[in-house]
Amino acid sequence: MSTSDGRGMHLIADLRACRGSLGVKDVEDLLRKAAREGRAKVLSVHAHEFGAGGGIAAVAILAESHISVHTWPEYRYAAIDVFMCGPEAAPELALQAIVEGMGALEVSVQRIARQAMP
Amino acid sequence: MSTSDGRGMHLIADLRACRGSLGVKDVEDLLRKAAREGRAKVLSVHAHEFGAGGGIAAVAILAESHISVHTWPEYRYAAIDVFMCGPEAAPELALQAIVEGMGALEVSVQRIARQAMP
Repeated sequence: MSTSDGRGMHLIADLRACRGSLGVKDVEDLLRKAAREGRAKVLSVHAHEFGAGGGIAAVAILAESHISVHTWPEYRYAAIDVFMCGPEAAPELALQAIVEGMGALEVSVQRIARQAMP
Repeated sequence: MSTSDGRGMHLIADLRACRGSLGVKDVEDLLRKAAREGRAKVLSVHAHEFGAGGGIAAVAILAESHISVHTWPEYRYAAIDVFMCGPEAAPELALQAIVEGMGALEVSVQRIARQAMP
């Protein structure tokens, strides 16, 4: 993409023991907040609700790449990925906003450096 | 989400030496094809084009989670992630469809098992 040379950080996070059960609007708002905290520009936000109590799939497309959230409220689990490119982006801060917003008591994160240049 | 117990596979793939420069419609079609090959159900597809030659960010939200594609045509690079849950899903086949569609000569993949249940 034109906004960067493709040097990026991809955070793969498993959130367990999430406190609350967020609605689709809450998750969309949380994606926007996470992007803001991560100094990223939101291009669009999309979400799907899997019926009553069935969880939510949501993605923010960013100028810096994307953030996704998939929730399984029945397991108090959420699968997150935060992929941000560009020197200004702060993916860890974005993830922190999501962890706090979901009220997760257990978090495990894998960090994968990604780079367009060989 | 209600479609699975959250047992999933997350493929993080770097595609280099991509042959072609796909347009936004091509990438959207490729996401749908990848989902089909991966035996996943597309809920919606979203894409953003970063101006002439600037690459594309695109995401398919699936009943089984998501597929994303971010392209940097100037580096002939694409960053892919395929996250699929559920026993029927075939994320490797979805990724293979994307690799072929992008004409990538070099592919590196990291496979991350994800699971809602502890």
